This record gives sequence, structure tokens and C-alpha cells, in this order.
Amino acid sequence: MVRSKGSVVFFATGNVNKFKEARKVLDGFGISVGMLRVKSVEIQSDSLEEVARASVVDAFGRCRRPIFVEDAGLFVDGLNGFPGPYAAYVYKTLGNAGLLKLMENVEARGARFESVLAYLSKELRAPVCFSGSVAGKVALSEGRKTGQGGFGFDPVFIPDGSTKTFAEMSVEEKNQVSHRAKALRKFAEWYTSLCRSGF
Amino acid sequence: MVRSKGSVVFFATGNVNKFKEARKVLDGFGISVGMLRVKSVEIQSDSLEEVARASVVDAFGRCRRPIFVEDAGLFVDGLNGFPGPYAAYVYKTLGNAGLLKLMENVEARGARFESVLAYLSKELRAPVCFSGSVAGKVALSEGRKTGQGGFGFDPVFIPDGSTKTFAEMSVEEKNQVSHRAKALRKFAEWYTSLCRSGF
Repeated sequence: MVRSKGSVVFFATGNVNKFKEARKVLDGFGISVGMLRVKSVEIQSDSLEEVARASVVDAFGRCRRPIFVEDAGLFVDGLNGFPGPYAAYVYKTLGNAGLLKLMENVEARGARFESVLAYLSKELRAPVCFSGSVAGKVALSEGRKTGQGGFGFDPVFIPDGSTKTFAEMSVEEKNQVSHRAKALRKFAEWYTSLCRSGF
Repeated sequence: MVRSKGSVVFFATGNVNKFKEARKVLDGFGISVGMLRVKSVEIQSDSLEEVARASVVDAFGRCRRPIFVEDAGLFVDGLNGFPGPYAAYVYKTLGNAGLLKLMENVEARGARFESVLAYLSKELRAPVCFSGSVAGKVALSEGRKTGQGGFGFDPVFIPDGSTKTFAEMSVEEKNQVSHRAKALRKFAEWYTSLCRSGF
């Protein structure tokens, strides 16, 4: 069986905000999740899935527990997909101000966040991946960080159908539409159906 | 012995400009170099050396020939080191125009190119690395690509002591000062001294 009910899966991440979002989604499915700060290798690739696959194989090799990683990117239409899978590094160096500067006088403000979650446990031969995405646009200025869910480029991203940036939303609000929550729900449905079917 | 004189080392790269620069430097040391288009895995790391080490181990595993890889980055002071090791991706998406836009009204135009060359052959237990760097500044506008040596961010980088951008130089001129040529010369000196000493 993949995991017995009541068991714990681990989320390999150093980002407590990501972990909080994941815990909230997985709680709703009765899945307990623990945060594991494993420094796993990330490959350089324009494909989030390739990165997540390699990363979870590495993380699992280090801890030998049922574990998932999640890799996300921000793809801005008017910037040929920049910052893409390197969003974390670009955020660290340029921040929201840098992204907004690049977007000055750029008409095509459409953008999407993408997420890939890769899970691996000893019962599986290879990682299983789940993806989610959310379309939206780059805001004209930084939204105030009034919610609890915002980190990274969240203050400059407004999902379609909303007037708020991700950073102005509560974790619950963000989880209703976010790329990460979509990937997490797909994973949770797969995981719980396996548990139910006795695998 | 590492390699007998007259033997060939391979440069794993898809970048013909890099290869031309390398061939010119290594020719001067009597080292023959072949270009090998191996798609080797690159890890995501802020350390060029980590990237190069992992990459050459992967490339050697695929071809089992004496081989080197070279990884370079551009670190701009006023942008907290951006684009750093992700220069190739950032060039592909934002180009020189994007970098210049980020530098608008930025006083600290100091920058440096860094290069790490990692070599591996069956006689070695682990990769040997050689680094080179060149300090300079980000130009106020794109230099004309009048030389033959320019690619990537070369049209916006002026090395200290010069009034030309890298893109305005011939391969020979660029090789006199460039990060890559410095790393290549260190490698060539090591390699030829090993050959001379009979290893």
C-alpha cells in the first residue's frame, strides 16, 4: 500500500509560507503533513516538472520517507516567460520592484503562476507529479501585504476574476484559486483514493 | 597519465562562440579541443563551481572521454548579483534591453563576469576546477557587435581598462582579458604540466 490512513507525508521545503498553504489544503483531506527542511538538489531546467522530479528523487534518497516537493514559477507574457522557473532567485535579487521596472511600458501584462508537485515513497518506482496553474496579470504597483498568504511575487500578481493581489488574500482565499493549491488538491485526491482502495 | 601529448580533450557545449574562444586559447598551448554537444544536466545553484562540477560528472558519464564544461555568470553590483548564474536564461528572455532597463537610474554599474571550467577524465577521481573573473561595468547602451567575440551580454559589458564592450572586440582581444580565457589558461597550464611530467 502507498500509505495507511493516518500516516504522515512530508513536504521538503524551506519555505514556511508554502508549508502553511499545503497544510491547509491537505488538512481538508485528512492528510497530515510534516515540514522537512531537506536541502535537495535542484537541476536547471525550463521545465518545472523536470526540476521537481529530480528534486524529490534526491530528497527521498536522503530521508527515505514518503515525501513531496513543490516547484513553482511565474511566467510573464510580455517578458518572454521571465522569470519562469527561476522566480525564487529573481525575487531574491530584483524583488517586486525589479519586476515592475521591467514591466514599465509593457502592454502585455498577462502572466501565470505554475506549480508542479512531485511525490515519492518507497512503494513507488518513480515520482508521481501533479500540476496546477492560475492565469492573471502583473499589477501596476505592489499590492499591500494585508493577507497572510503572500510571499515572493504575490504582491504583484492579480489572479483572473479578482481585484486583489495574492498578497492581499488570506491563505484560504489564495488556496481557492492558486496554482499550488490546485496541484495539492490533485495530489490529495490521488493519495486518498489509493488509501481507500487499500493500496 | 592524464593524457598523452597530441591527444584531444572535449568541450561539452552547445555554444559555438564559447568553443571558438576556447579553441583559440588552447591552440596556444598545443592542446587540441573538440566540440561535443552533450546535453548535460545543470543543477540550480548560486555557485558556478557546483553547477560545473555536477555538469561535467554527468557529461563524462555519457561520453567517457576527457571532457570539460564551462559555466559562466554575470554579477551586477547594483542588482544584488543578478543575473548571476542564470545569465543564459535571463539573456534568452530579457536580452540586453531588459538588463539595461533594470539598470536605468542605477548608480552602481560595477559588474563582473565569472567563469568556472571543470575537467574530468577516467584517470581522475573527481573533477578539477579552474576559475577566472573580469571586473568591469554595465554600459549605458548596447555596444555595436563589431567584433567576432560577442554573444550574450557581451554588448553591454565593458571590462576595466577598456573603452570597448566585449562585443566590440575580436576573439583575441576578448581572450586577453576575459573570465573564460583566464579559466582556460589555468586549465591549459595544469594540463600541459601534467603531460610534461609524464602523468
